[in-house]
Amino acid sequence: MAHELPIAMKQWVLRDKSGFGNLLLEEAPLPEIGDFDVLIKVHAVSLNYRDLMIAQGTYYWPLKPTVVPASDFAGEVLRAGPLVTRFSPGSRVAGQVHQTHIAGTITASDAMNSLGGLLDGGLRQYAAYHEGGLVEIPANLSWREGATLACAALTAWNALYGGAKALRPGETVLVQGTGGVSLFGCQFAKAGGAEVIATTSGEKMGVLRAAGAKHILNYKTNPDWGKTAKELSAGKRGADYVLEIGGPNTFEQSCAAASIDGTIAIIGTRAGQSPGTTLPHTALVQTRRIMIGSRLQFEEMSRAIEMNDIKPVVDGRVFGFGEVREAYEYLWEQKAVGKVVVDVE
Amino acid sequence: MAHELPIAMKQWVLRDKSGFGNLLLEEAPLPEIGDFDVLIKVHAVSLNYRDLMIAQGTYYWPLKPTVVPASDFAGEVLRAGPLVTRFSPGSRVAGQVHQTHIAGTITASDAMNSLGGLLDGGLRQYAAYHEGGLVEIPANLSWREGATLACAALTAWNALYGGAKALRPGETVLVQGTGGVSLFGCQFAKAGGAEVIATTSGEKMGVLRAAGAKHILNYKTNPDWGKTAKELSAGKRGADYVLEIGGPNTFEQSCAAASIDGTIAIIGTRAGQSPGTTLPHTALVQTRRIMIGSRLQFEEMSRAIEMNDIKPVVDGRVFGFGEVREAYEYLWEQKAVGKVVVDVE
Amino acid sequence: MAHELPIAMKQWVLRDKSGFGNLLLEEAPLPEIGDFDVLIKVHAVSLNYRDLMIAQGTYYWPLKPTVVPASDFAGEVLRAGPLVTRFSPGSRVAGQVHQTHIAGTITASDAMNSLGGLLDGGLRQYAAYHEGGLVEIPANLSWREGATLACAALTAWNALYGGAKALRPGETVLVQGTGGVSLFGCQFAKAGGAEVIATTSGEKMGVLRAAGAKHILNYKTNPDWGKTAKELSAGKRGADYVLEIGGPNTFEQSCAAASIDGTIAIIGTRAGQSPGTTLPHTALVQTRRIMIGSRLQFEEMSRAIEMNDIKPVVDGRVFGFGEVREAYEYLWEQKAVGKVVVDVE
Amino acid sequence: MAHELPIAMKQWVLRDKSGFGNLLLEEAPLPEIGDFDVLIKVHAVSLNYRDLMIAQGTYYWPLKPTVVPASDFAGEVLRAGPLVTRFSPGSRVAGQVHQTHIAGTITASDAMNSLGGLLDGGLRQYAAYHEGGLVEIPANLSWREGATLACAALTAWNALYGGAKALRPGETVLVQGTGGVSLFGCQFAKAGGAEVIATTSGEKMGVLRAAGAKHILNYKTNPDWGKTAKELSAGKRGADYVLEIGGPNTFEQSCAAASIDGTIAIIGTRAGQSPGTTLPHTALVQTRRIMIGSRLQFEEMSRAIEMNDIKPVVDGRVFGFGEVREAYEYLWEQKAVGKVVVDVE
Repeated sequence: MAHELPIAMKQWVLRDKSGFGNLLLEEAPLPEIGDFDVLIKVHAVSLNYRDLMIAQGTYYWPLKPTVVPASDFAGEVLRAGPLVTRFSPGSRVAGQVHQTHIAGTITASDAMNSLGGLLDGGLRQYAAYHEGGLVEIPANLSWREGATLACAALTAWNALYGGAKALRPGETVLVQGTGGVSLFGCQFAKAGGAEVIATTSGEKMGVLRAAGAKHILNYKTNPDWGKTAKELSAGKRGADYVLEIGGPNTFEQSCAAASIDGTIAIIGTRAGQSPGTTLPHTALVQTRRIMIGSRLQFEEMSRAIEMNDIKPVVDGRVFGFGEVREAYEYLWEQKAVGKVVVDVE
Repeated sequence: MAHELPIAMKQWVLRDKSGFGNLLLEEAPLPEIGDFDVLIKVHAVSLNYRDLMIAQGTYYWPLKPTVVPASDFAGEVLRAGPLVTRFSPGSRVAGQVHQTHIAGTITASDAMNSLGGLLDGGLRQYAAYHEGGLVEIPANLSWREGATLACAALTAWNALYGGAKALRPGETVLVQGTGGVSLFGCQFAKAGGAEVIATTSGEKMGVLRAAGAKHILNYKTNPDWGKTAKELSAGKRGADYVLEIGGPNTFEQSCAAASIDGTIAIIGTRAGQSPGTTLPHTALVQTRRIMIGSRLQFEEMSRAIEMNDIKPVVDGRVFGFGEVREAYEYLWEQKAVGKVVVDVE
Repeated sequence: MAHELPIAMKQWVLRDKSGFGNLLLEEAPLPEIGDFDVLIKVHAVSLNYRDLMIAQGTYYWPLKPTVVPASDFAGEVLRAGPLVTRFSPGSRVAGQVHQTHIAGTITASDAMNSLGGLLDGGLRQYAAYHEGGLVEIPANLSWREGATLACAALTAWNALYGGAKALRPGETVLVQGTGGVSLFGCQFAKAGGAEVIATTSGEKMGVLRAAGAKHILNYKTNPDWGKTAKELSAGKRGADYVLEIGGPNTFEQSCAAASIDGTIAIIGTRAGQSPGTTLPHTALVQTRRIMIGSRLQFEEMSRAIEMNDIKPVVDGRVFGFGEVREAYEYLWEQKAVGKVVVDVE
Repeated sequence: MAHELPIAMKQWVLRDKSGFGNLLLEEAPLPEIGDFDVLIKVHAVSLNYRDLMIAQGTYYWPLKPTVVPASDFAGEVLRAGPLVTRFSPGSRVAGQVHQTHIAGTITASDAMNSLGGLLDGGLRQYAAYHEGGLVEIPANLSWREGATLACAALTAWNALYGGAKALRPGETVLVQGTGGVSLFGCQFAKAGGAEVIATTSGEKMGVLRAAGAKHILNYKTNPDWGKTAKELSAGKRGADYVLEIGGPNTFEQSCAAASIDGTIAIIGTRAGQSPGTTLPHTALVQTRRIMIGSRLQFEEMSRAIEMNDIKPVVDGRVFGFGEVREAYEYLWEQKAVGKVVVDVE
């Protein structure tokens, strides 16, 4: 409230989308706020695979010519436009990746208008957004933790709880690898009374175990892991939900792992790679494409995180605001265990 | 009631499953009925693609060594076991293909126990079934028409009205070809206030038009029919439901035809052939495998058929009980327009 | 576009909410439009029971001290703010009663912000609204017909197609009386392949028949109409959906009319009066309170109206813009058959 | 298998339904099994309020003239009919209260055919049932614990997880009192990541706390407990699910406690007493009548109980097979904390 605002600020921008080297730190005026907007002091940002694709020019939705990257941030509301009712100075918020996706099915227009894509994202000291595109972050999370939710966590939540049928206690979930979606998938499944089977190449078993996975399969030494997963599932019924992250041959194994009426959630970013196989005759699996989630789902997820005191897994190395390129490289090299976070000073 | 029952009857059987020539007509004793069974005088049978596969040895579920073929029949109840409450002599009934699939998701055990597969089917003069596996046929249908519902009609009904989200007025449905599922799909969609776009190779447009299709696309002259279908759909939103019958490349066109949140229903029999392609990044389509449907759905469908006076399309050539092999050949050669029916004397 | 705009316009306002006599016609400046707003030339308005309650001071949600009344209007977009993407000049639109209710469940905040209540409504020559609160009206409707949808039609649509389970062909719907919700209920049920049973006091049977009701019961001469309705329903199963408008004793009869798993939709405006009875032990009926509907539902409904060429029932007497008080009286005295419409010059 | 079967057994029967004194212990031949039946050695039975009503003549569904009482039992399969596939000797099973309610909506015919009502129940040393009406009990439960599930636990499960929308982590549940349904409700809600608010008269707080209730309200000292419950709920949103057990005025408080789109599950047994009040205008609450649940739900619940190692609360006083009348009295006097169980020798 009494916070004195500067006239200018620092922000990262992307013009040429052909590599992380094009990420530039520059000065900019503070954003102005309209009637329904709030001004936010950004405190932390987390990076997603999608941000790498955008910087490398491999993303498949339209982009703003000069864009402030990164969809995931957490920050504090400093000022509120005269018609704002959802937040007030001091509110701790994150942004909806798809700003206009409030509830129900995402539309093509919602899908296009994403933070860090066609709209400026969070890699800046101050940001202004319409109140309708923001959500309060859980009270039990730090700024860093709160900055990890908008993309990976909401994707996992949507996959498990956002469909016509929601996960219930006693069901089995299969997650692939140790990326953000998989780790949140473990935590959200366990909070809901389900059991998790995870696959990995073997190096990062500890983080899966800590996130709540009951069984961990090494897909390198066990290429037939789908069948094994089915045998390990409660009542050998197979997985009720599979979080299909993609890559060659995973869809086939996912089908083998699934229960007769299981749902295979095909996660957005890499979905173009799958399903590249045929469904077996004896499976009734449904596939459901996940494109992050709605604001309503974000709000539900935040309540679940707070009520169950779930802590997002943040990688041990946190980057400073001047180290954004290094943070991109680090995520690209798959060195991280948990979300890659940048502090915004 | 006063119907005098013979001691023996005629029935068709399949032992060696290697071609239609193995279909044999033989004598058998009348089936006995248990406490919960009814005895039925079969009046008509219709054939499905599944019956061809069974006779040719290409079916993928276990079969009874010597089986009476054909899942779809209509007949009259003659006798009822002492504990039967659902039917009485005079009831006009058809059988559930999967006898124990009452409601909800089909289980693996339900899927296996199918008429004409692991259980004796309808190609016989008299049949006995547990009352739980039977459904009353609509009052507006003849025996021949009533014999067409159990497989093709119920599949189409389930695809449109059996999922978590049911078809509503104002939506668009895409059907492929002029097979039984597609024709019923046209009729059920139109009854529900939806619009139908159909594909065909061009020869059987009349039957699609009669069944209610608004737009008909020739997939031979327009290989890019998916895009055309989307442009023809209401509001150019794309098809809300696609009845995917399969075959090379149809899945890719179905994705192009579908709305962003459309459902592609993958029809059981030929499902092993699809989906053999990748999902485009910008589609959120869901796929849903259809394995016929439950008894509850059959009952709902029967009410809808009767209330809306829907008449199944029966091919002009109806076969006599002695012409079963000819009926199989006729269906195999794809000469039929509508369902292929055999009268049972 | 080339439309030359005046500086001032006429509008009706309500200050003192103690009777229709307080409705005043006054001059006002043209509304200004923000970045996301459009300016609309209003062509027609329809009145609802809710408008009567607001004018009489019996409404239960907060009101703007001086409010332009009426939630239901249809008009043409004249100007669009610089960031508007959903509409352009020439678009034919109606407004969402609850402006921010986009999809999913209505929130308390959505419910409060209604047109003609806390926000200015349609009884004025020009209006400005955020593009997010508007919907295109069906192409087959006139301005008068398009002005009848926002409240009564959307309520009926939501009751039949907006719940977790949507109406399907073959089901039975019961509507009460000849008000707007009931007449739209008849039309939407029939378009979806269902059968309608309607109750009335006997004078307005013709309009129910024209709207598609199959059976019409006189609740005055047959106080036990619930039981009769059940017997008249398809298969004597009872009504799958009841549109419960309220009044003494109707809930009890609605329970008697409903199928074992039927849904009784309790319509918003008069909901405070019901359910004032106990549920019978042998009914599993669900009740579902309807508070109009979401923008997503409005869009679905508009497609259904256009695709099935449904024509709203407009009362034969249409009022001029100077006759607003007379229109309120006319609705109050229950003289209308169909919606009461005011032309806006 | 090698179990040597006696020729006769002991069973309790009810002829005259006018009080617990009419419960008689008598000798009976061992039940015979048909093709699809199994013979069960009953080990434990639990009593429900419904059993008291049946014995006192206040039950509202038809009863068998001479009936073996009690729907809830657990026992071991000794023999299986020749066509049984779901169980084998050694299987540990409980029975579906409504034997034919497999999945989906309960029908009137399902509702009538209940154990201890129109069909013989569990208060006997040996029982025979169709395999379709049985469910395997969780491996983590004793016979006594396994005998508590069929009625109270399944009712609570259905209320929370059986509707179109299932409970998700982060939601709030309100339960009333310390009966079986409420205690299972606490445990099932907590297992699913939700928070529980419970009401009680104050004497049995410990058992609610042990079952997982976070907040406990004394309805005697706080007659306005609905409002308090709303304020205590996460985000002060109100309860997403209310398990409405009934009694004067509870429905009004339940409405006050519920979130705007909350579901009030009206529990079967006492449903005739409610809802006896009007819905407030500003609540959108849905009501949903619960009549126990389907076999599919029982199977889901059993997996959830086993996976989350949930232990039913059994009252400290367990009755011998000769003390059935005393057990009825004990339940009637509301002395029990948890389920009242009878051992069957």
